[in-house]
Amino acid sequence: MTDKSRADLILHSASQLLTLAGGPQRGGSLGNLGIIEDGAIAVADGVILAVGSTDEIQRQFSAQRTIDAIGSVVLPGFVDPHTHLIFAGDRAAEFEMRIAGASYMEIMDAGGGIISTVKQTRAASVDSLVTQARLRLNRMLAYGTTTAEAKTGYGLELETELKMLQAILLLNDEGPIELAPTFLGAHALPPEYADSGEKEYEAYTAEIVEQMLPAVKRWWTKEASGEPFPFVDVFCEIGAFNLSQSRRILTCAKEIGFPLKIHADEFDGLGGTGLAVELGAASADHLVQTPPDDIAALGQSDTVAVALPCTPFGLAEREYTPAKSIIEAGGILALATDLNPGTAWCESMQMVIALACRYMDLTPAQAIAASTINAAAAIQRTEDLGSIESGKQADILILSVSDYRHLGYRFGTNLVSTVFKNGELVFPDS
Amino acid sequence: MTDKSRADLILHSASQLLTLAGGPQRGGSLGNLGIIEDGAIAVADGVILAVGSTDEIQRQFSAQRTIDAIGSVVLPGFVDPHTHLIFAGDRAAEFEMRIAGASYMEIMDAGGGIISTVKQTRAASVDSLVTQARLRLNRMLAYGTTTAEAKTGYGLELETELKMLQAILLLNDEGPIELAPTFLGAHALPPEYADSGEKEYEAYTAEIVEQMLPAVKRWWTKEASGEPFPFVDVFCEIGAFNLSQSRRILTCAKEIGFPLKIHADEFDGLGGTGLAVELGAASADHLVQTPPDDIAALGQSDTVAVALPCTPFGLAEREYTPAKSIIEAGGILALATDLNPGTAWCESMQMVIALACRYMDLTPAQAIAASTINAAAAIQRTEDLGSIESGKQADILILSVSDYRHLGYRFGTNLVSTVFKNGELVFPDS
Repeated sequence: MTDKSRADLILHSASQLLTLAGGPQRGGSLGNLGIIEDGAIAVADGVILAVGSTDEIQRQFSAQRTIDAIGSVVLPGFVDPHTHLIFAGDRAAEFEMRIAGASYMEIMDAGGGIISTVKQTRAASVDSLVTQARLRLNRMLAYGTTTAEAKTGYGLELETELKMLQAILLLNDEGPIELAPTFLGAHALPPEYADSGEKEYEAYTAEIVEQMLPAVKRWWTKEASGEPFPFVDVFCEIGAFNLSQSRRILTCAKEIGFPLKIHADEFDGLGGTGLAVELGAASADHLVQTPPDDIAALGQSDTVAVALPCTPFGLAEREYTPAKSIIEAGGILALATDLNPGTAWCESMQMVIALACRYMDLTPAQAIAASTINAAAAIQRTEDLGSIESGKQADILILSVSDYRHLGYRFGTNLVSTVFKNGELVFPDS
Repeated sequence: MTDKSRADLILHSASQLLTLAGGPQRGGSLGNLGIIEDGAIAVADGVILAVGSTDEIQRQFSAQRTIDAIGSVVLPGFVDPHTHLIFAGDRAAEFEMRIAGASYMEIMDAGGGIISTVKQTRAASVDSLVTQARLRLNRMLAYGTTTAEAKTGYGLELETELKMLQAILLLNDEGPIELAPTFLGAHALPPEYADSGEKEYEAYTAEIVEQMLPAVKRWWTKEASGEPFPFVDVFCEIGAFNLSQSRRILTCAKEIGFPLKIHADEFDGLGGTGLAVELGAASADHLVQTPPDDIAALGQSDTVAVALPCTPFGLAEREYTPAKSIIEAGGILALATDLNPGTAWCESMQMVIALACRYMDLTPAQAIAASTINAAAAIQRTEDLGSIESGKQADILILSVSDYRHLGYRFGTNLVSTVFKNGELVFPDS
């Protein structure tokens, strides 16, 4: 006893401990779970001290608190690298209208679409945004997400965009879910523009580049001094920002020092993914209609391909991200919810995995790797998140099943029984 | 105070109280939720005494226990009228093989398919079947199901089929979910048959008709004396029982006095739905490839069309039950999970609703009616289940949202916060 090192927590006897050790999984290496049977973890100060067999860990460590995970799968907390977490209100009426056969224009005329969320978000206080998003975060946590990216983009003017960033910072401070912020001023054309032609997009692009990005930098330096800069993201799509506008915004953001993301190829392959690779973006997201050349470029880069299967599912569309092509090209594939009030109000990475297995032909093992270590890569956090390895944050899930393949195989309910964040039990509430 | 009638429980101030009053909803009437804003319910002895506005109910009744449902939707407990609840083991390995591209025959050669569940179920004790199914029932309850149908069909010989019926009776006694049992001896050809041609199906059909059905009647009369007979169901499909075998089994069952169900038209329209109508079956289930004449017949009958969208979803198939045609024909449409280990391990009627809205073009209101009052019709229980009306069982859900349309609109998580069965709080555990 006396020779053993002290830990705060030992989690032991996991039927399958999925370590996901070894860094981001590129191409054909995707799905390497690094399984330890009868596995154990020693944790101190919120960090993983050691990982191994129950015998090994129990020989080396003692802890006041021990958790018996017998009959259970243990894995890293899910990282959700693409969410529109912060928004006010909902668009349930629009969902109903769409089913009843309303056209896009009828929905717009009835006050629907993204601009309805922009109006509600502009009208909401920071407190109200925090309160509404907290409900979603609680749900994400219960379903196993321990870190999430969160975007602005329902302000489309500086004040509300900063209010959304403020809400993200407040919720990150509150925890337990860690939030990686993204500035998405280039989400849509603000409703102030009477028309929505190229001229208006050019004008708003100039506003973003000349005024908003420098202002975000100033604000961030003041409000979040010392924290890494938020990502800057652009919605590059027909009916949103074209490739040259996207290039202008992302290039300017890069010069200022922001890391980059892009919404690309959701409905049309405009070259956004190639742009992301060229600029060294952390990720390119959606990627449904990505041209073969851009998939090839992705395979040669460290830009992570983030697939968002909840979005085509939410819209009952038939086409999903061509995961197999991305894998064959050698790309780094990740999964995310795209949580948003218009097309995909879903907080559960387990739902994402179930969709990815069915519509992107990922095996459960591949989908799990894309939701943990590769999702951490999409927010540039592989040094401390996404796997169960010594030195990483103790963000750990226990499932109520003994075979990891139940993730994907089963759907529509929650298989996570216990969530630890930085070594603390955060779900269920005790 | 003294003039008021006593109740055990008053649930009041519901933002939207969905009564679903008025009986099964046929054809174009589907989706009539009977909403009372600021609604209330008085309950005594597990039965609904009265339903009305909060003012009305509070004027007429007093109760020691009151529940404030402000900001919430209140609706009847979901009825899940088609489940294969009772089974041993899982088929997660088969799911993984299918994604990796294994053919049906390769899966069979690896010991997969329905026969793998038959082998595990035959080998399991009643206790083990009960223990495994209880986990699923707990999950169903948490997601809002208060009554479910449950089938045999993984025995394919009398002893195991009766063991499955026994498990259903035990779990029904245990509660809180009520179970409506179904004998599905005609689920597949037993593995004892070396070949699987028409001759073998004829022989097994004869065994069901001549030996199993009479034996089930004798057993039931002894073990469940006074309880209504279980349903008898047949899997009518190419590769399972043909129309004439299905007719023989169901006709014999009807003569004995069993109420009827059928698995029809999942992959091929063989006439099973027309047979169900002709024999006055309680329901015809699956109905993906149902021929127009059979849909027309359904519209003129009281046989409920039970759609199972988790099954095509589970298999990543593209075709779903043509709900609009069934509604236009005047049919009674219900929804169910089809919970089973092969194609659809899903306990959540909320997932079913989300799928039905997207792939069957049901509005949330239609999907809710199909999951409550019409689902009760599919198990012949409309006299006491499926709506919030005076005299019915107090099976009641409270949602964590204030607009019923969030069912369907949002997906992948649980919107049910509280479940009452027969007036008792059964979820969450207190």
